[in-house]
Amino acid sequence: MSAGCPLCDADGGLVVARTQRFRVVRVLDEPAHPAFYRLIWNAHVAEFSDLSDTDRHACMDAVTEIERVLRSLLAPTKVNLASLGNVVPHLHWHVVARFEGDSHFPAPIWAAARREAVPVLARPLEAVDAAIAAALNL
Amino acid sequence: MSAGCPLCDADGGLVVARTQRFRVVRVLDEPAHPAFYRLIWNAHVAEFSDLSDTDRHACMDAVTEIERVLRSLLAPTKVNLASLGNVVPHLHWHVVARFEGDSHFPAPIWAAARREAVPVLARPLEAVDAAIAAALNL
Repeated sequence: MSAGCPLCDADGGLVVARTQRFRVVRVLDEPAHPAFYRLIWNAHVAEFSDLSDTDRHACMDAVTEIERVLRSLLAPTKVNLASLGNVVPHLHWHVVARFEGDSHFPAPIWAAARREAVPVLARPLEAVDAAIAAALNL
Repeated sequence: MSAGCPLCDADGGLVVARTQRFRVVRVLDEPAHPAFYRLIWNAHVAEFSDLSDTDRHACMDAVTEIERVLRSLLAPTKVNLASLGNVVPHLHWHVVARFEGDSHFPAPIWAAARREAVPVLARPLEAVDAAIAAALNL
């Protein structure tokens, strides 16, 4: 735990899965990108390479499972994965389903928006949440 | 190989390491972010989850080694990792050393620049290239 770290102080989104190592949250404050999940490491570590090999593999196995659920249920044009942490240096992976015609496509979601648009998803987000939890064997 | 894919047609940067599975290039066309490397999968696959478990682990083990070299030699404020591929859907990982005061910090490099600045690196990039090649046991 690190004093003043927002990801030590709070879950950081709607928790859809929680393990001893990490939690997976659905991001609620990016309405243009509704199928936006984050895997947040529970311990306060800054960099991916701070993890042990076992933890790194567990982390990316879970990121991969989230990606697979998004692909399977929502058939996005592309999945975007990123661990940045410049503002909040507490390890977290963004996993975002991207759709041609979404507000930023094909630019990254951090670039300027190109249009106003919210993708229509093939399945309700609650079904995606449940499938992620199931995929992580919870 | 996929016709018309720029990462099937060319290396995509200055090659610093090449294996059967992937190559690592230094990105030459982002002068504001000089310590910017990409791991490019040799086969044309779009998504990280298209890889076998063995290949995924090899991929992220290598990304981790690149991150470790950047941290060890350049002491960046943060390392940014991303696999996006919206424009070029051929699996590649961005590995970028970020520095407080760089042109975009703390925003992602894909956001609007906040200032004009080029980080002064603690070591020449050629030394970083060589250390990455060595870390990948080449």
